[in-house]
Amino acid sequence: MSSQPLLPLGFRYSAISAGIRKDGRIDVALIAAERPATVAALFTRNLVRAAPVLVAAERAARGLASAVLVNSGNANACTGEPGLAAARDTSAAVARALGVAPEQVLPASTGVIGALLPAAKICDKAEALVAALSPAAHEDFAQAICTTDRWKKVASRRIGDAATGPVVLAMAKGAGMIHPDLGLLRPGTEQVAGVPHATMLAFLLTDAQVSRETLERALIAATNVTFNACSVDGDTSTNDTVIAMASGANSTAVTEAALTVALTEVCDELARSMARDGEGAEHLAVIEVRGLADDAAARQIAKTVATSSLVKTALFGQDANWGRLLAAAGRAGVAFDPSRARISIGNERIVHDGLAVGAEAEARAAKVLAADSYVVRLELGDGPGVAHYYTCDFGHGYVDVNAGYRS
Amino acid sequence: MSSQPLLPLGFRYSAISAGIRKDGRIDVALIAAERPATVAALFTRNLVRAAPVLVAAERAARGLASAVLVNSGNANACTGEPGLAAARDTSAAVARALGVAPEQVLPASTGVIGALLPAAKICDKAEALVAALSPAAHEDFAQAICTTDRWKKVASRRIGDAATGPVVLAMAKGAGMIHPDLGLLRPGTEQVAGVPHATMLAFLLTDAQVSRETLERALIAATNVTFNACSVDGDTSTNDTVIAMASGANSTAVTEAALTVALTEVCDELARSMARDGEGAEHLAVIEVRGLADDAAARQIAKTVATSSLVKTALFGQDANWGRLLAAAGRAGVAFDPSRARISIGNERIVHDGLAVGAEAEARAAKVLAADSYVVRLELGDGPGVAHYYTCDFGHGYVDVNAGYRS
Repeated sequence: MSSQPLLPLGFRYSAISAGIRKDGRIDVALIAAERPATVAALFTRNLVRAAPVLVAAERAARGLASAVLVNSGNANACTGEPGLAAARDTSAAVARALGVAPEQVLPASTGVIGALLPAAKICDKAEALVAALSPAAHEDFAQAICTTDRWKKVASRRIGDAATGPVVLAMAKGAGMIHPDLGLLRPGTEQVAGVPHATMLAFLLTDAQVSRETLERALIAATNVTFNACSVDGDTSTNDTVIAMASGANSTAVTEAALTVALTEVCDELARSMARDGEGAEHLAVIEVRGLADDAAARQIAKTVATSSLVKTALFGQDANWGRLLAAAGRAGVAFDPSRARISIGNERIVHDGLAVGAEAEARAAKVLAADSYVVRLELGDGPGVAHYYTCDFGHGYVDVNAGYRS
Repeated sequence: MSSQPLLPLGFRYSAISAGIRKDGRIDVALIAAERPATVAALFTRNLVRAAPVLVAAERAARGLASAVLVNSGNANACTGEPGLAAARDTSAAVARALGVAPEQVLPASTGVIGALLPAAKICDKAEALVAALSPAAHEDFAQAICTTDRWKKVASRRIGDAATGPVVLAMAKGAGMIHPDLGLLRPGTEQVAGVPHATMLAFLLTDAQVSRETLERALIAATNVTFNACSVDGDTSTNDTVIAMASGANSTAVTEAALTVALTEVCDELARSMARDGEGAEHLAVIEVRGLADDAAARQIAKTVATSSLVKTALFGQDANWGRLLAAAGRAGVAFDPSRARISIGNERIVHDGLAVGAEAEARAAKVLAADSYVVRLELGDGPGVAHYYTCDFGHGYVDVNAGYRS
């Protein structure tokens, strides 16, 4: 999205083709920190976790890392012990080439589930990957991690107000099996899937000097309202991974608040881009729910509406079909009074106190649905609970991508 | 499905066109009992309930009813007080023509949400509808209640072993917004939606002599493992209704067990037909989950797999994509050990102890997916918990039906 992103000091990037993908596109990518960086990482809460998730979660728990090694074309999920060995072998090969300990390299993978990662292909390219490292090759990295994405996803922000202050650069990929449910995978933290979500991968790099605890809190806060509120198809991947690394190379002090704002802004830009780039999608729909007893109730409704096949096919058809919106809200398992419901698409109110405003309002709302992005707002009472969810329309493109994905 | 169903004594049927549908097809249908019949009824637990659901639930609670009045082409949902008046007025007009009290007539509707039911059109036809009643017109009834259904759904069974014993005749409709979550809508009973589900309507008629309590228990037992385990698109309708009526016209004694078996068999036949006839669907997929701690856990996984867009598009593509099956199971919020998972399609085992059996097995399994119907079996441990869910593939047909439904 950004052609000239802000680049944090202390990181280099590279990407090459190792022949993991059949089409010969670049498919292995590396981020390397000049010295061990502070790390915080969140991983899928799907009970079925890919080998790189298990390996990276264990390593990230140490709080310091030097590199992230990512491949597309193969998820290395449901591959058992050989899969774990493949994740360890490939990251060890890169660690050797970098001259760091294997535990300093965090692996991540995306692609087909169930096929063993051809580790030798990556190991053979480890030296070349490291030799190619450059502080300006972030775009290559962002391209290499893409699978069904139609565009690269890059965002950046300066943290705080200082003109020479630290920055954050974020790169991510979608575009299917997207319904992230990310959490800490650390002993003693909550691990069971709460909600459904694709493989999304996101990497946030900053040159700020921050503690691991601060980075982790800011990352969790940013993720919960962005990636964890984003759905293409309601299917949570086995591989979802968000890794934040702080090099500390810029010594300008930043507050946790400023860090949280910057991380949230870049994650928000990427989550919107991810939903907009959902497989086959033509629109970004922001489902906004207001007036519930609390945010959790609002979020449950927003998620149910955002993942409804009938709602999403109506959005594809540019049909302001509020009956489907209200019916989806009604099955979310949350109490509200349907006779008080108000629904708007963009600025067009189409339901007032549970009843249709009229055919003309719906016709105007249908025109809003032709836009690249729009807000669908459900006001369901006068409680303080609010939430949003990013989703997309659901049409023939999604079926085309997913009915023949492995062939 | 059955060209010569068994017909219970004591009921007559009719159907006419009242001009509710734009295409001029028959759209209003009536079942009339010769004398007040014992009634049990289950309704959608969606928080948003159509006017006919509210009216029928109140009337069914009395335990006796003489008639069921159904229209297609308009759901009479989200229509407020005028909608309630339309449901009462239309059933009152039919009650007058039948010579019974208005409370003896249970209304049901299916069609577009949010448009006021043109009650006058139905009231004008009330006399004609009653005049057309015939004990042999059940096929007309079954046709009139269809919306996007490609075929009528009729099933019948004899209850118990006696050759001249009572029978049950069941008629239903699908085919979208199908994910029934049916329960008693009676004060003091559970009313909040627990799970997502189309408008499905089903009417079960028997000439057995049974108490209302027995009929209700048998209906709940039958519904929970059939209609409530059936999903086309995961969207629970505002109008889902199952009504059972017992005329008592056949005095051969039946046991509750025999009644439950017969109701379950007809509901099972209709639920399978409904999933197979899901909008745009080409296959009935029976998702069978085994080996969990209890049936509720197995059911939660079966439901999550049955409603996964990625699983359903893979079934459309006839791709034995077990990675998507396992990933969906893993986000159901239920504990199991993925490394022990076994997955079969038909008799083809494709996953053993969490790992792929191999490309040849997947190729054989893909051939099974070409069949009209098949079983997808996930064995996830050695616990006693089992459950099944009926679902269908998800392809271009569904998008075509639902992207332009109201236009």
